[in-house]
Amino acid sequence: MVQLGLVGLGKMGFNMRERLRAAGHEVVGYDRNEAVSDSASLADMVSKLDAPRIVWVMVPAGGPTRETVAELGELLAGGDLVIDGGNSRFTDDKHNAEVLSGKGVGYLDCGVSGGVWGKENGYGLMVGGDKAHVERAMPIFDTLRPDGPREEGFAHAGSVGAGHYAKMIHNGIEYGLMQAYAEGFELLEAAKVVEDVPAVIKGWQRGTVVRSWLLDLLVRALDEDPELDDLEGYVEDSGEGRWTLEEAINHAVPAPVISAALFARFSSRQKDSSAMRAVAALRNQFGGHAVKKIGG
Amino acid sequence: MVQLGLVGLGKMGFNMRERLRAAGHEVVGYDRNEAVSDSASLADMVSKLDAPRIVWVMVPAGGPTRETVAELGELLAGGDLVIDGGNSRFTDDKHNAEVLSGKGVGYLDCGVSGGVWGKENGYGLMVGGDKAHVERAMPIFDTLRPDGPREEGFAHAGSVGAGHYAKMIHNGIEYGLMQAYAEGFELLEAAKVVEDVPAVIKGWQRGTVVRSWLLDLLVRALDEDPELDDLEGYVEDSGEGRWTLEEAINHAVPAPVISAALFARFSSRQKDSSAMRAVAALRNQFGGHAVKKIGG
Amino acid sequence: MVQLGLVGLGKMGFNMRERLRAAGHEVVGYDRNEAVSDSASLADMVSKLDAPRIVWVMVPAGGPTRETVAELGELLAGGDLVIDGGNSRFTDDKHNAEVLSGKGVGYLDCGVSGGVWGKENGYGLMVGGDKAHVERAMPIFDTLRPDGPREEGFAHAGSVGAGHYAKMIHNGIEYGLMQAYAEGFELLEAAKVVEDVPAVIKGWQRGTVVRSWLLDLLVRALDEDPELDDLEGYVEDSGEGRWTLEEAINHAVPAPVISAALFARFSSRQKDSSAMRAVAALRNQFGGHAVKKIGG
Amino acid sequence: MVQLGLVGLGKMGFNMRERLRAAGHEVVGYDRNEAVSDSASLADMVSKLDAPRIVWVMVPAGGPTRETVAELGELLAGGDLVIDGGNSRFTDDKHNAEVLSGKGVGYLDCGVSGGVWGKENGYGLMVGGDKAHVERAMPIFDTLRPDGPREEGFAHAGSVGAGHYAKMIHNGIEYGLMQAYAEGFELLEAAKVVEDVPAVIKGWQRGTVVRSWLLDLLVRALDEDPELDDLEGYVEDSGEGRWTLEEAINHAVPAPVISAALFARFSSRQKDSSAMRAVAALRNQFGGHAVKKIGG
Repeated sequence: MVQLGLVGLGKMGFNMRERLRAAGHEVVGYDRNEAVSDSASLADMVSKLDAPRIVWVMVPAGGPTRETVAELGELLAGGDLVIDGGNSRFTDDKHNAEVLSGKGVGYLDCGVSGGVWGKENGYGLMVGGDKAHVERAMPIFDTLRPDGPREEGFAHAGSVGAGHYAKMIHNGIEYGLMQAYAEGFELLEAAKVVEDVPAVIKGWQRGTVVRSWLLDLLVRALDEDPELDDLEGYVEDSGEGRWTLEEAINHAVPAPVISAALFARFSSRQKDSSAMRAVAALRNQFGGHAVKKIGG
Repeated sequence: MVQLGLVGLGKMGFNMRERLRAAGHEVVGYDRNEAVSDSASLADMVSKLDAPRIVWVMVPAGGPTRETVAELGELLAGGDLVIDGGNSRFTDDKHNAEVLSGKGVGYLDCGVSGGVWGKENGYGLMVGGDKAHVERAMPIFDTLRPDGPREEGFAHAGSVGAGHYAKMIHNGIEYGLMQAYAEGFELLEAAKVVEDVPAVIKGWQRGTVVRSWLLDLLVRALDEDPELDDLEGYVEDSGEGRWTLEEAINHAVPAPVISAALFARFSSRQKDSSAMRAVAALRNQFGGHAVKKIGG
Repeated sequence: MVQLGLVGLGKMGFNMRERLRAAGHEVVGYDRNEAVSDSASLADMVSKLDAPRIVWVMVPAGGPTRETVAELGELLAGGDLVIDGGNSRFTDDKHNAEVLSGKGVGYLDCGVSGGVWGKENGYGLMVGGDKAHVERAMPIFDTLRPDGPREEGFAHAGSVGAGHYAKMIHNGIEYGLMQAYAEGFELLEAAKVVEDVPAVIKGWQRGTVVRSWLLDLLVRALDEDPELDDLEGYVEDSGEGRWTLEEAINHAVPAPVISAALFARFSSRQKDSSAMRAVAALRNQFGGHAVKKIGG
Repeated sequence: MVQLGLVGLGKMGFNMRERLRAAGHEVVGYDRNEAVSDSASLADMVSKLDAPRIVWVMVPAGGPTRETVAELGELLAGGDLVIDGGNSRFTDDKHNAEVLSGKGVGYLDCGVSGGVWGKENGYGLMVGGDKAHVERAMPIFDTLRPDGPREEGFAHAGSVGAGHYAKMIHNGIEYGLMQAYAEGFELLEAAKVVEDVPAVIKGWQRGTVVRSWLLDLLVRALDEDPELDDLEGYVEDSGEGRWTLEEAINHAVPAPVISAALFARFSSRQKDSSAMRAVAALRNQFGGHAVKKIGG
């Protein structure tokens, strides 16, 4: 059993603390929200840990993570280890590692997948950084990851940045998988050849080629709302899909499915499309085709 | 100068009659709308023509065209010639030609492009059928097509069906071209780096690689409505785009741009997307991500 | 336990006979390949069954299935039941059902998923047809489907055709899922940020959002050939992806992911692309851009 | 008539010098290639110009342009003006302008379209920067742009960077347009319904909706090589398409056509696709589908 600091006790961090404590680890959490925090400040948290310390950072990617790492650089000492478990862009990791290495503090980046189910099922983990650091943190990884063979729920992906890179690609794939199911669902709904769409999708859970955890979740959603009509078809994107597409551009890799899935989300958030107004205007110009006028 | 019957005096047929008469041809038009018709019935129209007759059919594709051809098969006689200038699917042409050939009546299919501007500029023509029939109708084609070398505004594409096939592909390309301009327009609008978007697009009309007639029409639309905000981004599709994609499927030809343009139109007509409701539901299931609830 | 005839003892049918016999059913198989057949002819097979008979057809979709059904129509009698378990297009089912109903023979269409693994794991089944027929064949379905709750590996999708419709959409989704994993794999390979790509993909099998049976199979393939370089990137398509896209066109449903997956397969089979030759020619024309000449 | 320095006398710069001189401007060119250069060095070129000077930079985007601008910053003096006419990314312009503004040297960015045809037809120009600078350089722009109304071949797009931004979007659109024609061409070739494909495409030049300069170039290419079979379907991309897609990502604008056109180029350069090897491997795993083995 190990002792660790855990910064960020939101939806993910809070659950991870539960899972770690249930396994007997000592977790000193810090969050700006006093109601969930175990310590009054980041400094207070650090002071409650015995050196050499391990601090897991689980705060929003970008500015918040970079700032937390910088602050920890001030508070920690040689031999300590920071693990960024957030959804940081892999390009942030090198910078974060350098900030800390100047103080002799080690750094690992860890992509974490599994959402709110991870508390119970364990989280899929993809880690980047030095082998020695990975080994040191292994008791934590072994608790957070799912039961079963370690290599099926955990990977040491490479050096610093490789963990978040693997997570980014994981999420790019996830966009494509979700969109594939979604297009199939819409077709079943539109064609009305299949009479009981939720029953068919439920029947895909065992034996078929398309069985997956996402399919199980779709079944769960349809159990709650068989036509999904309590929801709007409005979908945010959180960064990894965009970064994956940027990587596809950088490496000249065709990514038609991942880009289509990302664009479908962009479209879902548009009330009206400038592009399609331009197409409507063109058709009107050459063909005298009827167009919908605003308020018309 | 020739004499011809012209069935269908809608937006296209009406203008074509004007252009043909202006060139000195004798046109006997028929339309169910008495206000524009030159004859009381199809039979009346036929009776006013001297054998061997030429009849140009310019009615909606599908049922109306097939029915008109069938009726003409009853009314016409050996040596007569029917030209289908509508937007028929190329697969209809073989059937139409057979219906008529039993009576010794010839058949040409003619794809016609140019929209409401054709009356003044002339129409691009793509013709399928026997060479002898094409030659016989050439005075009509030469009047309808634009000024300039015949081969730049007219093509004898092949045997029966080839004219409409060429027109179908033309329209598939047109979908892609329009969507390309539209995406560029939306990007310029969204990024706000370019201060005067209509001025930039107007400035593309000469010298650039993207200059085209569609670009000229976009400039015209932006002159009338600089942000195109009198319009809704709602775009119909009239068949040829779908048929083009079906042909891509049949011949295992990748058509990512034409399909993307078609799907953008489908999306433009959806108030809410079942597919994106499914994606929203999935994100909600695994991540506890906020979703927009109807009325929420 | 029931008795049934089974026509077609290829990869799928052969395995299904094994699974059915292992459960105690009496299977009389027929295949043109004498080495695997239990009977000398279709007629011989029918003669070995007690009325009312059940015959499962597991032959290639299209002509072979339609011909087998027609022959069975001659051989069977009122009260018998035919189940088409092949990958027929849903539009064939109505015809097949009508052929048989004239003789008082019932018809079910059954989409079967699971590939070569079905023998051991069971097959996901999607059935179309009358409830009474479904109930009569349920002992067979219950043996073929995977263990676990019936509704998770079996669905009565609707009336005749609905089973194959569900299977078609299932396969369309499958195309999209496979392409999503494939794009992620190519990106990981191309970027070389992740040092051990197979280890990362193996590590996605538990806990992650992208875990699935297809992912397990990808892990299996990478275990055998870590860079998949014994294979060519040449991928056939077997019909269902095309039909799914045609349905998307028919119902005006955007299907960017499924179409992208299908087009990627088309492209994979092209040695050289006419389209890209046209793009190269255009760039050469306007920019004097270097182009690759054949043999140059 | 004005005097100007012109750095970079490659395919584009060389032609522009011709066009400028033909109109009576005094051009002092500099290129590392002595055979075409009018001056021995950048410093020599500057020394031959009377203050206040105008220097047009026409060198490859990225490093070469940034270095040329930095050197010019050393050589030029307050009141001088630099115009970057290359294909720089719009994000470079702000930096370049700042480098020069410290010395009191003005900066304009000018997107130039028209390729090798610009010498004769004039170039489409999109300019970013201060109005006063634009007016000062107008005699140059008026010579370089095509004949006809200024606003149809020239646009002052906005402040520094807006010219290259407009050019970037122009090129993104260009990718989409070319791919649309290319898909149509491939379909015509594959289907063989149209007997004379080049004749049909030539016949689209007048009157049709798809008429454009690119179409004229395609006709020209087909005149030289009717099946384009002297070329390989291998297509480079030069940056602007990638940047356009990155902008689409940044602004959450769906760009399915432009991305499809870019990915088609990426694919055209792949001998074999890792992604499609993964799909082949998956099909082999679940279905025992035949796969092509290397050397098999």
